[in-house]
Amino acid sequence: MGNPTDTAHRPDLERLFNPRSVAILGASQNVKSISGQPVWSLAKHGYKGTLYPVNPKYDTVEGVKCWPSVESLPEVPDLALILVAAARVPQMLREVGKKGIPFCIIFSSGFAETGAEGLALQHEIAAIAREHSIAVVGPNCQGMIGVTDDVYAGFGSAFSGDNFRQGSLSMTTQSGGFGYGVIILAEESGLGFRSIVSTGNESGLTTTDFIEWFTRDPQTKVIGAYMEGVKDAHRLLEVGDKALDADKPVLIWKVGNTDVGQRAAASHTANLGGALALYEAAFRQRGMIRVRDANELIDYTQVFECGKRPAGNRVAIVTISGGGGILMADQCVESGLSVGPLTRESELALKDIIPSFGSWQNPIDITAGIFNNPEMLAQAMQIIVDDPTVDSIVVIFASLQGEIATLRAKELVELSARTPKPILAAWSAREKFASEAYRILKEGKVPRFSTPVSCGKALAALTAFAEAQRRRAKEKTEPVLSLQRPDAKAMIAGRSADLAEYQAKALVAAYGIPVTREVLAKDRAAAVAAAKEIGFPVVMKVQSADIAHKTEAGGVRIGVPDAAAVEAAFDAIVASAKAHVPSAVIDGVSVQEMVSGGTELIVGVQNDPLFGPAVMVGMGGIYAEVFKDVSFRLAPLTRSVAESMLRDLKCFPMLDGARGRPKADVDAVVDVLLQLSALSVDLKEELAELDINPLVVLEAGRGVRALDALAKPHGRT
Amino acid sequence: MGNPTDTAHRPDLERLFNPRSVAILGASQNVKSISGQPVWSLAKHGYKGTLYPVNPKYDTVEGVKCWPSVESLPEVPDLALILVAAARVPQMLREVGKKGIPFCIIFSSGFAETGAEGLALQHEIAAIAREHSIAVVGPNCQGMIGVTDDVYAGFGSAFSGDNFRQGSLSMTTQSGGFGYGVIILAEESGLGFRSIVSTGNESGLTTTDFIEWFTRDPQTKVIGAYMEGVKDAHRLLEVGDKALDADKPVLIWKVGNTDVGQRAAASHTANLGGALALYEAAFRQRGMIRVRDANELIDYTQVFECGKRPAGNRVAIVTISGGGGILMADQCVESGLSVGPLTRESELALKDIIPSFGSWQNPIDITAGIFNNPEMLAQAMQIIVDDPTVDSIVVIFASLQGEIATLRAKELVELSARTPKPILAAWSAREKFASEAYRILKEGKVPRFSTPVSCGKALAALTAFAEAQRRRAKEKTEPVLSLQRPDAKAMIAGRSADLAEYQAKALVAAYGIPVTREVLAKDRAAAVAAAKEIGFPVVMKVQSADIAHKTEAGGVRIGVPDAAAVEAAFDAIVASAKAHVPSAVIDGVSVQEMVSGGTELIVGVQNDPLFGPAVMVGMGGIYAEVFKDVSFRLAPLTRSVAESMLRDLKCFPMLDGARGRPKADVDAVVDVLLQLSALSVDLKEELAELDINPLVVLEAGRGVRALDALAKPHGRT
Repeated sequence: MGNPTDTAHRPDLERLFNPRSVAILGASQNVKSISGQPVWSLAKHGYKGTLYPVNPKYDTVEGVKCWPSVESLPEVPDLALILVAAARVPQMLREVGKKGIPFCIIFSSGFAETGAEGLALQHEIAAIAREHSIAVVGPNCQGMIGVTDDVYAGFGSAFSGDNFRQGSLSMTTQSGGFGYGVIILAEESGLGFRSIVSTGNESGLTTTDFIEWFTRDPQTKVIGAYMEGVKDAHRLLEVGDKALDADKPVLIWKVGNTDVGQRAAASHTANLGGALALYEAAFRQRGMIRVRDANELIDYTQVFECGKRPAGNRVAIVTISGGGGILMADQCVESGLSVGPLTRESELALKDIIPSFGSWQNPIDITAGIFNNPEMLAQAMQIIVDDPTVDSIVVIFASLQGEIATLRAKELVELSARTPKPILAAWSAREKFASEAYRILKEGKVPRFSTPVSCGKALAALTAFAEAQRRRAKEKTEPVLSLQRPDAKAMIAGRSADLAEYQAKALVAAYGIPVTREVLAKDRAAAVAAAKEIGFPVVMKVQSADIAHKTEAGGVRIGVPDAAAVEAAFDAIVASAKAHVPSAVIDGVSVQEMVSGGTELIVGVQNDPLFGPAVMVGMGGIYAEVFKDVSFRLAPLTRSVAESMLRDLKCFPMLDGARGRPKADVDAVVDVLLQLSALSVDLKEELAELDINPLVVLEAGRGVRALDALAKPHGRT
Repeated sequence: MGNPTDTAHRPDLERLFNPRSVAILGASQNVKSISGQPVWSLAKHGYKGTLYPVNPKYDTVEGVKCWPSVESLPEVPDLALILVAAARVPQMLREVGKKGIPFCIIFSSGFAETGAEGLALQHEIAAIAREHSIAVVGPNCQGMIGVTDDVYAGFGSAFSGDNFRQGSLSMTTQSGGFGYGVIILAEESGLGFRSIVSTGNESGLTTTDFIEWFTRDPQTKVIGAYMEGVKDAHRLLEVGDKALDADKPVLIWKVGNTDVGQRAAASHTANLGGALALYEAAFRQRGMIRVRDANELIDYTQVFECGKRPAGNRVAIVTISGGGGILMADQCVESGLSVGPLTRESELALKDIIPSFGSWQNPIDITAGIFNNPEMLAQAMQIIVDDPTVDSIVVIFASLQGEIATLRAKELVELSARTPKPILAAWSAREKFASEAYRILKEGKVPRFSTPVSCGKALAALTAFAEAQRRRAKEKTEPVLSLQRPDAKAMIAGRSADLAEYQAKALVAAYGIPVTREVLAKDRAAAVAAAKEIGFPVVMKVQSADIAHKTEAGGVRIGVPDAAAVEAAFDAIVASAKAHVPSAVIDGVSVQEMVSGGTELIVGVQNDPLFGPAVMVGMGGIYAEVFKDVSFRLAPLTRSVAESMLRDLKCFPMLDGARGRPKADVDAVVDVLLQLSALSVDLKEELAELDINPLVVLEAGRGVRALDALAKPHGRT
């Protein structure tokens, strides 16, 4: 058992969910009270190990011998439950530690959720847990269920009903009451569970720890997580990687998305990003699947439990009623799946067997003719399954019921067993008239959904996961650009003020990012000399760490045409800037090449306290903050990741030559994103935010140019 | 009984759904066949009127006397069902007409859905129906159910199970098989129905007719429609108006959205619009509510059946578990609801009764303390209900179960009876442990949802409908701008070619829309004179109906500075244009004032064959087609409608002075939208498409200017 906060060595949680013996500290004889419920619940649900209620007040609890102290126990239990008031928890936890109990669930409230005093108490118990190497769940949680081993160690309605159905979904939830409510819904709809845990305040084991454990637990096939946010977010990529490798989808229900906090950020990157954008980036990078309601959790779990993974996103739709096919096609296309034509051979073969008022083209309508010619479905399905341009098949049976339904279900199961391609069914018959058909599908691992909408969404989730696995396999073969630039680090280390434009540009240039040719001129003569060197017309901008908004300070001139104009502009800029910010220390005026044409992007770095550095690219220009067309990825990036983030932008077609525009230098943008990735890792300790705004992208082959830049050191926020 | 296609007089469909007697033409003794099912189904479900099977082959069908012909029937039935092969339908329908039967459902397939021949047959039956004033349902449909009168006149699985639960939802569906599948799902989840109809090919009665009837049917409270598209779309506003006036929400499940057709359109307006945008405009204008899956249909029906309508969009959230409150707040904010603070008085009153680890601020967490202090909920709820800043209240009970659940349900029902404010519950206990509580809520018309997500969405739908009712009430008091411009009509009437820019601008100028000052110059001298009159610099553009893309033809010069340059530009433009399109008839070169600054919009008209004229406004510039930030409304518009369409744009804040930009002349844009509305109505017969691109919006008080325009007559498409 390693320390749970040790990143090198993750704890094995098998004995937490399936303890051979459990000590219940503070167990009560009153089963209506929170401290009375766990012993009752463990016994009622058939716990097979030994229970050790601990309470000096009682001789027995629920007919089980009660012990006066932890120390007095005749063996070292695998798990301790702490049910005493918050103030007594540290002492109890020390006793647990002295006894050498490896796992402990602290149910008690009164910690970080109540304010500063509670937080201090929580720090204290975390320290005790570290000292004794106890893996702690909670405090302020509702407990855990080892469903496949009948271990119900907790309180509340989930612990007072029947045993849950056993299965392969493991769940971690940060909300006890609501999380268990969702689990009850999922169970009632037919899902089965392996392990469930409510993590509470996460003073020890975190949501991320549990996801990580579930990737290693052989009996878990699908992982679910209900989260408000995690403090160890930087580990999400690592854990997601393990899940992809283990072929285990992680279904994440992330809440707390609307009030992202009002931190005043200096850069566009931080304004356009924030925690939610970084969660989304992490999920996207490792194919973790967002769910947004209980029915999605249920539907997606079902489709993943079929065990199949489609080779691509091409779907064939087969229906016995045209209406459902139209809806399914809508849903598939909206979800990013492709509903394209089959091969000409398949179409002709289908044409031979489908009635003339049907459709032999995808979406395929074999019509209610199935009633007169029951073989038609199997014949059509075989043709479709054999078609090399089809990756998955969905069948819409509307409200087909009775014996014909049972026979069609059998055919689907037989066909599904013979092909690696996923076959899904949308079927909305009355439960009682199609129960046999439904049972056959369930046993045969053909996922069934009540409507084409839920079916299409689930297939899209399955397809996205398989795609993430392929993408990850490719990324692993790619090098990561890594750059060390001690000189650049020196420019920003220890600073508290933002870097002025010319300094920020020097910083990014150190990592190879092309910036405008420019000279920082201290006086008029230097400015004229610089302009002659660079070539007219030039751009001139005031440089001062004290002036964030140069244009508003009257400190910018575009298209300055000749030497006389440069002299006049120099004086005017300095005068305006001084008038605008009298106390400003002015470093000089930057004389820059003028870049015309091209497309404006914003690129940048957000170095988040929870996630670490992330790279951003987005549409530039005046509408940037209106449309928020941005894409984030956590660093470091490989080339294919950088390309994918660029392609995720809605404005990407404009760079790629849409509407008769010249193709922009996309490769050069990708280079910049990789350089920013290397920069963000190299300056992880020094840099808080950086953006290049605008980055002008010229025509293909002509590169990019950073026109302006801003860098904010970690020193202040 | 009026003619069903007569727009002045809509048919009363009471006797269709509740006929005193039904003739079944082509009834079969084989109950497994389609033609055997209706008599069986009507009898089995307890039809209380008289059945007249008609088939010369039989003496009885299902034990009921069978008649040899329609003519032989002893009375005139209210309804005829036609179940014969397509080719025999016209003859049968004539017999129905001669007998004077007012309603007829044609089940037979083999009409428009099979191609040209079937379409001709369908036209024939439509003509027969008109001649005899028969209101026809179908052909190619599955029939209807008068649920509250036990009339099951159709075939398929919906007609072979138990009687549906009676209730107040009436549904029309264009897909028989799929539509009835959805209805079965809805019924199983607890909804009750008034009337259900499958409309098939709609040769007579349409989806729109049925919605219209349901607005008048006193027993219908909620209207559902599953539609692929309607041919009488221009009536959607009229029918939606009736629904708003009758306080009946119309829940529309519109499918067939992804393949909008590939009609090559000349204007941006048409490219950015299309049928789906116009459906959305119609739904938006009359508060018809889109549903996108069966569960939304079910949830929204439930919330509307509570009968309450919130006075605004301010929601108070009350939970016994923090987690659910966060999710509910997310969902409400995402759906456009407001989760703001209560009054200071309410907060202080709540603070007095809620435990310190709870939250007395919205979202309010009264915590699991409810177990120790059961009165707390009722006390808190009374404070919240009395708060004048609260329009609706949602309560999240997680998985609360048993007797405490029953008591809390009773309290909610009592409270709900005393307030006009909607109270909704999200509650996910196991059905069997909370069945009494659930029953109490249902009887007390407190809508219950299994998760905060479905609860939040339903509340948003309810709130949007109430808002649409208020909006409509306001619009009714506003004048509609109406303009007749015979001269403008003459410019476009009878044309087949697009209008060149100068003509299109003259057209829009005739309705008062400000265009650039300009002169069409036929030669160099005229161009120079015009430029001097207008003032330098000027813009010069070639004018020819044969040159759609002036810039590509080298036919545009911006910022022409002086007389010499105008002369040179004139020659160069004409030469380039001739080189580009040698056959082009060139009307001249337009010399125009040059407008600098401002924000670019696109505005236009799409005169749709199904919907009639619609007005569009959208973001202009190079990203217009990437972001498709557009807003459509069907004409005519009132001022508040025009304002709302502008506010719907994502880029509206840019016009409204966001990010330190000057406020643009929004009022002038609204004027243009009203003028376009008047134009589109006046030129309804002549104009197919029009756009003004760009319309430059200057600073507030400085107006707008149409820089370019394109008009396409109806003559060609």
